[in-house]
Amino acid sequence: MINNFNYYTPTKIVFGDNTVCKIGSLASSFGAKKVLIHYGSPRAIKSGLMDSVKNSLEDFNINYVLLGGVVPNPRLELVYQGIDIAKKENVDMIIAVGGGSVIDSAKAIAYGAKYDGDVWDFYLKKSSPKEALPVGVILTMAATGSEMSNSSVISNDETKEKLGCNSDISRPAFSILDPSLTLTLPAYQTAAGCVDILMHTFERYFTSKGNMLLTDEIAEGLMRTVIDCSIKLKENPKDLDARGEILWAGSLSHNGLTGCGNAGNDFATHKLEHELSAKFDVTHGAGLAALWGSWARYVIDICPERFYRFATKVMNISSYNGDISKEDISKEEMKKLGLLGIEATEDFFKSIDMPTSLKELVPSIKIGDLEDMADRCSNISGGHIGSCKILGREDMLSIYKMAFDR
Amino acid sequence: MINNFNYYTPTKIVFGDNTVCKIGSLASSFGAKKVLIHYGSPRAIKSGLMDSVKNSLEDFNINYVLLGGVVPNPRLELVYQGIDIAKKENVDMIIAVGGGSVIDSAKAIAYGAKYDGDVWDFYLKKSSPKEALPVGVILTMAATGSEMSNSSVISNDETKEKLGCNSDISRPAFSILDPSLTLTLPAYQTAAGCVDILMHTFERYFTSKGNMLLTDEIAEGLMRTVIDCSIKLKENPKDLDARGEILWAGSLSHNGLTGCGNAGNDFATHKLEHELSAKFDVTHGAGLAALWGSWARYVIDICPERFYRFATKVMNISSYNGDISKEDISKEEMKKLGLLGIEATEDFFKSIDMPTSLKELVPSIKIGDLEDMADRCSNISGGHIGSCKILGREDMLSIYKMAFDR
Repeated sequence: MINNFNYYTPTKIVFGDNTVCKIGSLASSFGAKKVLIHYGSPRAIKSGLMDSVKNSLEDFNINYVLLGGVVPNPRLELVYQGIDIAKKENVDMIIAVGGGSVIDSAKAIAYGAKYDGDVWDFYLKKSSPKEALPVGVILTMAATGSEMSNSSVISNDETKEKLGCNSDISRPAFSILDPSLTLTLPAYQTAAGCVDILMHTFERYFTSKGNMLLTDEIAEGLMRTVIDCSIKLKENPKDLDARGEILWAGSLSHNGLTGCGNAGNDFATHKLEHELSAKFDVTHGAGLAALWGSWARYVIDICPERFYRFATKVMNISSYNGDISKEDISKEEMKKLGLLGIEATEDFFKSIDMPTSLKELVPSIKIGDLEDMADRCSNISGGHIGSCKILGREDMLSIYKMAFDR
Repeated sequence: MINNFNYYTPTKIVFGDNTVCKIGSLASSFGAKKVLIHYGSPRAIKSGLMDSVKNSLEDFNINYVLLGGVVPNPRLELVYQGIDIAKKENVDMIIAVGGGSVIDSAKAIAYGAKYDGDVWDFYLKKSSPKEALPVGVILTMAATGSEMSNSSVISNDETKEKLGCNSDISRPAFSILDPSLTLTLPAYQTAAGCVDILMHTFERYFTSKGNMLLTDEIAEGLMRTVIDCSIKLKENPKDLDARGEILWAGSLSHNGLTGCGNAGNDFATHKLEHELSAKFDVTHGAGLAALWGSWARYVIDICPERFYRFATKVMNISSYNGDISKEDISKEEMKKLGLLGIEATEDFFKSIDMPTSLKELVPSIKIGDLEDMADRCSNISGGHIGSCKILGREDMLSIYKMAFDR
């Protein structure tokens, strides 16, 4: 059964080599006169990327102010600074030069610049954003899909909260995707990014209440491509075509496409991971890899047919006695094959040096931390997370425990 | 090798049962105060659909005027009428209630309402549209993808021309896709629509100058789904899920997604078909089915590896001695399997009662007509069509001749 859905991806994508020089004309076509350029690491400046951006903006008589310093798990503190600058300088667009953290931070500034109250209200769900400045993106890392998504996740150092705000008005006006900008990304960040991309489709694919055949086909094709290209990049980080495939997969995996017609989005693994990176500041994709297998084994009984389909279509698991057609196969047999698919996924994570347990990710982690994370995850989410299987506080703790020391 | 690309699909999609009632709130969210409702057959009125549309608009205090009478291969004459009404009544949005012909006609009116000159200029490429009224869509037939595409094709009865105008400003603001509205579509229109959908991906998939792996995966998944559901609908026209799959496939197949990173779009078969339906007023999808196999056999030598991939991944052709891996296979073997894939595609067309020759489609057609069509196709296109293989006037004639009486 196909479920009703909305699909809205207004972001103009400009993909390919030598596309950074188009930033001026793109920003101008969206009416920009003065922009805030928001960025993270000094890599953007050292590489000469920032000069290209400035030159292109100058060609179109667009003024700019700069704000760097975004870190992974971007901080609210810097967002407040950005909002102050945006208001004081009267900027009419935020341009994010970086990966998901920079874009998420830019989105938060874009909300705040058009809001008189505290932007954190939107993340606490006390209020919802009605307006935002347009955001333009030059993407330097494939992972979060924020360059096309409606999502922004910000960490509050003071309260140790890591919270998301989803709103269509934050979908970027345009995003420039030049695969060559991702060539110098370290192996760990590349692999963690690939896991995050894969997971954005997992969160939509594993559903217990109906799905769409076309969406399954698209999701499976995307997952196969990401796995294939992750392995290629582990072998050869300079494989430009594989970088390109991963970059575009990142945008499509989280713009809504891979969930159309499926029941709900699960995102339980994401929410469990948010507590992990809020507490230990780990890389999001690595946190997801450490948790997913445990989540999957915990929920497989609710939809063995989805895990079976995943195992056979994506992970190349063949029916174990070779002659079981889909019509004949029992739920038990589906589960058996589904579990092999989960195992194969964890083997894939290992092959690209991603962790598959919490101890492996955070050697100092203690059982008491799990209780704490389950409490916070439960409190923040109003007691329940997930859609494929709805999980309460005890379920969350069970999954953390399963993932603790596998 | 991946090619640079732009991807831009701003249309807000609202998909599913009972979504027609959202037309008022959607139109209102795009600022509509007075709209022109454009439609085709009286079916929209008889079915009660038009009443639902009117009621929903009235709920949001949106005024409307009506213009019906759009026919397949929509006529310029009616477009002029629509432009007059739109200007006189000062409407701020065109709402298309129908299939591709109605939407294409609505787009032409939307261009013309914001233009002082003759809207046909845009189709003759004498000028390009700078502005258009927003278009909203209630889709009643899956086929052209116009509900999400930048394309509009209009027929000029006086000059016997059928010409297209592509511009991103004509991409609809929103489209409502309710599969139940397509349940009563006659079998022939259903099948022709499925061929058109398939062909929009074919035109992007068969390329000789580079492609993207992720796009191939998405394209192949879409093609498998369309073929599968076309056959389901031939058996059971009331299969609502199959209607839904086809409806969404229609939008995705022509919004640009299935060509990202591939070299050029071919669209030679489409252009050859335009001359056919301009001359004989045949159903577009049926015309495409009658021509495609001949086009494919004519160009296969330029990219046997694409036809081979298509044959094995989409048409279930297995390597003929069972043990040829992709790396080992020669171009000759690829072509051999590719030709089997083309044959299987034509068998599929036949299975859903679509023609695979021109004689079958237009029994009265004469060899002289082919010369005439090749002349017109060549003249209109400036001498050449296609991208996979560039075709001149003699190539066009050869393909028409191959398709004449197979």
